[in-house]
Amino acid sequence: MKINAGIAGATGYSGEVLVEMLLKHPDVRIAGLYASIDKPKISDIFPKFKKRIDLECKKISASDMADKCDLVFLALPHTVSMEIAPKILSCGKKVIDLSADYRLKNTSVYEKFYKVKHKDKSGLKEAVYGLPELYRQKIKKASLIANPGCYPTAAILGLAPALAVNLINSSSIIIDAKSGVTGAGRKLAEASLFSEINEDFKAYKVNNHQHQPEINQELSKISGDKIEVTFVPHLLPLSRGILETIYINKAQNSKLKVHGLIDLYSKFYKSEPFVRIKEEGIFPRLKDVAGTNFCDIGVKDCGDKIIIIVAIDNLLKGASGQAIQNMNIMYGLPEHTALI
Amino acid sequence: MKINAGIAGATGYSGEVLVEMLLKHPDVRIAGLYASIDKPKISDIFPKFKKRIDLECKKISASDMADKCDLVFLALPHTVSMEIAPKILSCGKKVIDLSADYRLKNTSVYEKFYKVKHKDKSGLKEAVYGLPELYRQKIKKASLIANPGCYPTAAILGLAPALAVNLINSSSIIIDAKSGVTGAGRKLAEASLFSEINEDFKAYKVNNHQHQPEINQELSKISGDKIEVTFVPHLLPLSRGILETIYINKAQNSKLKVHGLIDLYSKFYKSEPFVRIKEEGIFPRLKDVAGTNFCDIGVKDCGDKIIIIVAIDNLLKGASGQAIQNMNIMYGLPEHTALI
Amino acid sequence: MKINAGIAGATGYSGEVLVEMLLKHPDVRIAGLYASIDKPKISDIFPKFKKRIDLECKKISASDMADKCDLVFLALPHTVSMEIAPKILSCGKKVIDLSADYRLKNTSVYEKFYKVKHKDKSGLKEAVYGLPELYRQKIKKASLIANPGCYPTAAILGLAPALAVNLINSSSIIIDAKSGVTGAGRKLAEASLFSEINEDFKAYKVNNHQHQPEINQELSKISGDKIEVTFVPHLLPLSRGILETIYINKAQNSKLKVHGLIDLYSKFYKSEPFVRIKEEGIFPRLKDVAGTNFCDIGVKDCGDKIIIIVAIDNLLKGASGQAIQNMNIMYGLPEHTALI
Amino acid sequence: MKINAGIAGATGYSGEVLVEMLLKHPDVRIAGLYASIDKPKISDIFPKFKKRIDLECKKISASDMADKCDLVFLALPHTVSMEIAPKILSCGKKVIDLSADYRLKNTSVYEKFYKVKHKDKSGLKEAVYGLPELYRQKIKKASLIANPGCYPTAAILGLAPALAVNLINSSSIIIDAKSGVTGAGRKLAEASLFSEINEDFKAYKVNNHQHQPEINQELSKISGDKIEVTFVPHLLPLSRGILETIYINKAQNSKLKVHGLIDLYSKFYKSEPFVRIKEEGIFPRLKDVAGTNFCDIGVKDCGDKIIIIVAIDNLLKGASGQAIQNMNIMYGLPEHTALI
Repeated sequence: MKINAGIAGATGYSGEVLVEMLLKHPDVRIAGLYASIDKPKISDIFPKFKKRIDLECKKISASDMADKCDLVFLALPHTVSMEIAPKILSCGKKVIDLSADYRLKNTSVYEKFYKVKHKDKSGLKEAVYGLPELYRQKIKKASLIANPGCYPTAAILGLAPALAVNLINSSSIIIDAKSGVTGAGRKLAEASLFSEINEDFKAYKVNNHQHQPEINQELSKISGDKIEVTFVPHLLPLSRGILETIYINKAQNSKLKVHGLIDLYSKFYKSEPFVRIKEEGIFPRLKDVAGTNFCDIGVKDCGDKIIIIVAIDNLLKGASGQAIQNMNIMYGLPEHTALI
Repeated sequence: MKINAGIAGATGYSGEVLVEMLLKHPDVRIAGLYASIDKPKISDIFPKFKKRIDLECKKISASDMADKCDLVFLALPHTVSMEIAPKILSCGKKVIDLSADYRLKNTSVYEKFYKVKHKDKSGLKEAVYGLPELYRQKIKKASLIANPGCYPTAAILGLAPALAVNLINSSSIIIDAKSGVTGAGRKLAEASLFSEINEDFKAYKVNNHQHQPEINQELSKISGDKIEVTFVPHLLPLSRGILETIYINKAQNSKLKVHGLIDLYSKFYKSEPFVRIKEEGIFPRLKDVAGTNFCDIGVKDCGDKIIIIVAIDNLLKGASGQAIQNMNIMYGLPEHTALI
Repeated sequence: MKINAGIAGATGYSGEVLVEMLLKHPDVRIAGLYASIDKPKISDIFPKFKKRIDLECKKISASDMADKCDLVFLALPHTVSMEIAPKILSCGKKVIDLSADYRLKNTSVYEKFYKVKHKDKSGLKEAVYGLPELYRQKIKKASLIANPGCYPTAAILGLAPALAVNLINSSSIIIDAKSGVTGAGRKLAEASLFSEINEDFKAYKVNNHQHQPEINQELSKISGDKIEVTFVPHLLPLSRGILETIYINKAQNSKLKVHGLIDLYSKFYKSEPFVRIKEEGIFPRLKDVAGTNFCDIGVKDCGDKIIIIVAIDNLLKGASGQAIQNMNIMYGLPEHTALI
Repeated sequence: MKINAGIAGATGYSGEVLVEMLLKHPDVRIAGLYASIDKPKISDIFPKFKKRIDLECKKISASDMADKCDLVFLALPHTVSMEIAPKILSCGKKVIDLSADYRLKNTSVYEKFYKVKHKDKSGLKEAVYGLPELYRQKIKKASLIANPGCYPTAAILGLAPALAVNLINSSSIIIDAKSGVTGAGRKLAEASLFSEINEDFKAYKVNNHQHQPEINQELSKISGDKIEVTFVPHLLPLSRGILETIYINKAQNSKLKVHGLIDLYSKFYKSEPFVRIKEEGIFPRLKDVAGTNFCDIGVKDCGDKIIIIVAIDNLLKGASGQAIQNMNIMYGLPEHTALI
């Protein structure tokens, strides 16, 4: 018996990747595609799908989703998901939400960044933060997954091992992040034109990005302390990938040396299928993770400071790949199915 | 006494390049910038101009232009120019129009491609086609210049020497053209997003581009025969440059050999400051012309066929650079002023 | 029982893609990796393979290959394959050769372009040209496959339907080809530096490329006439993909119209899993085929002329993907296994 | 009377830009081009110079340079300059050295990074660090200029105003730097191939780059304290530009607020022709400085921390442009000649 999966927001970049990956999934049947534009065939929107899938996108309808699907991936704009998700859940179906709607536990922070009141506080309470490396057991039993943001995925995976053992001064975290352009989605904006981005590089939302509170919330949970990171995202002239260079001060009494650091990280992620720790002196690059669900991490001990470099594909481990990893966990399937 | 030059459409890519080049021109004062959006400082639109020019853009107004300027560059959308130009000309000022409005002598062809009736047939009659290599003497005395399109500039310069001596079968011309993205201007369109163009390449308006009748008109003028080329433009994932690969059959009685061909081209353009003919076996590349007003041409004799490869910067020799070259000619200045 | 497959030349781009694809193939075990550099782990050369395959590359040795493998993919430089292949074949094993060594039936043409005498004329006679759309039945029974070149694959698939029905004037074929940079392989050359290629575009080997005789040979076979195409390859500033724009004159008595043309192509490739014909007015783009084994074809009837546009991924349908498609056919597996 | 300028290393990227800029300089005659390869015409190496300069490159010869030139730009590999410079200087001519040979006052640091003994300690003592914004008066009288490195230029200009008033905790400086590919020069290396860099992004020489001691030396000079920065350079998939994101902790007793910060920077660089400070909330981007000699700086006050973002063109303000700015100062010419 295959899982009947629905994809809402099938015409965006995350939706495109979900279709792409689920077509290869032996245990999934794509039961419905949903989009704000009515009626187009997915293979007209993305001609790469010709001869592979011939489904029409339907209007977004919670009841149709609940009717046709066992599980729905919501790859919708922020603030739309929280109107749809409760209705699907109330019919006993499952939801993996790729928007920010169920990530921030503090609704006033949500409202500050998304300029709208939160409409589903009970869903918010129930939602499990879908980062398998930290919350696999909860994900197994969850009905509603808040799939992590792309920047937070890299930041949390990069910092968790050090934070978990109180190795670092938690007030000193600086995250210099660089993302490919698909991170911004497919919406029209002058800043997203080829001629504006090609041969350019710049910071944006300097220390004021909507993913920053998500990072703070999750790191604080791990650390026990209230953490507020410094976070500067930049836009790379390439399509896919996020690389974060993280700078932290060691905690005062820390005695860790470089091998210790690599050992620490390697042990922490020993059984993880999608996290790879680099050998000493080697650091991640986007090329090695683009098109994959892997998260590559390199660490360097610099005396008082530690430098951590993390790379993921923003549309896979940073979005749709992780969503499928979560689905695999929820249904007891081998975690790497359709992902390797 | 400096030339008081106005630029209408200063916030587009052609306008940007005009500002850039005219700032370096020792005989020009930028007397006015005009745009459809009111009031912005040009240095807020293009921060690269900070500490260089601090002018506010004004609303497009023919009377203000006629009042403040000796010469106005119209870098406006097609169909707008023909409403402005006559008013400026009627005040005894000069116009160099970078749109298509004064290029096509046959108004029914114009109307077919631009979906609007032509409104200034007398201007159309008076306008000189601003390709200095062919029409320098007329340009000297002109008040209204129809600055050539980017694709036509490359096509005509590439074909003129061969056509002029009846070397080729004029019904056999195939132009396979490839353009950088700035050719499409700065307007918002999904097809112009970075994520759509990066790592992509495609043909568009296959044998149906609005520059095709302009090419036909000008080649026919040179040849004496009615010429209809086959023309397929493609979109390159880079910012600036056009390269055209042109295939023609030799005329039946032609006896020219490769050296003859290169000689023919070299002689034809001997005194031209901005046309360079490649040695045998060497062909143009965009890198050599990007950021310059040069047109590089390479030719190869292949028995029955001739292959001609032409490269220009679409925003310079293909638009704003050529416009300034025309201005230099109109005012009796050294033709390369501000262009080398 | 899995197929034990070997990959010689595992450290080049074609080798990398073979490893990538075969890792996903349910019926294949990678039995050996071979390279000119001894001993490196494939996951040190390509860190993207960490946690996926941990094999060391061995020195190229025909006897080791024959010993360990049922089938060997030779992704070696031209002229090396013909020394290795006969030894493997003589042990009763199979070879799919991705080099040019077994493609050109006329050894004097081979010697002209590759500057070396051909050393395996009996292999050359036996080798089957591995284009499944034309030679599926022969491939089924073959032991030695000459896997087609990237440019020829696109050219032949684009022209076969029209040639097969004598629709076109076979002396008029012009192929304007554009390839991504991986087509040139991984060897060091100033012309391959990022700073030389980025923001550049140029033609190379104008009407003198080593794939041209391969195209001529195969088209002549289809047509019955001796065909000599005009062929100009260009280098695109992107990693993967080939797009060819093909111009042909109709045969004099041809009466075909546009729908006829699309119909003709659609019927010709009706049962093909990897060829897709575009609807009227729609043309292929690289984005739709990059990362896939598909070949997309668009056609336009322009009166006397026909324009055909073909797109493939040069490393997949143009090399490694087609090689695996051939393997699937040779072993009676579903043809799309590991390819969709 | 024009300055007779020589360019040694004319065939590299810095040399190319020097030729480009000096061709536009009204007070300079290019008196000689020198390169390690004998005899090539510069316009054969860089066909973009055809019809502009037709000089042959000569073998590198200090005596020929001293003979023909008033001033020589040495754009040579590190360790070569210090053999040539003393000979030119001893003939009473001037040298602007773009290599690292005269930048590091501590020869043991030089030897650690460049693996060779320093051979010209007296030159080293005499050399003036050519950063006009800090050392204009010394540059005026200098005969030997150590032209700053690209990364150091951005770092020093970004930090000088804050350091000069003891605003910051000098042990806390973190510089996350991103550079375009021309920064690595034109030498052959697999890591510099298009296919390796395109769509990739990575850190390199993590906290161990040869420019780091130069940054430390110059910042320490400004601050009075011994400064050791944390420095991680990254490689951007684009041709030109450096952007550095700098993180610093405020000094404990600092009371500065955001307006104070922008004011401080604006005043510090008030009379500088090539430094521009961004308004509040606006940050530099590469597009605004690429192809120019400008250095754009944006600052943000984040409570305990300050974020400074600096952008330059690595080949202009980071190398050849700055060299010409230095020449202009040395000869009493308007500082922006040929640079705007």
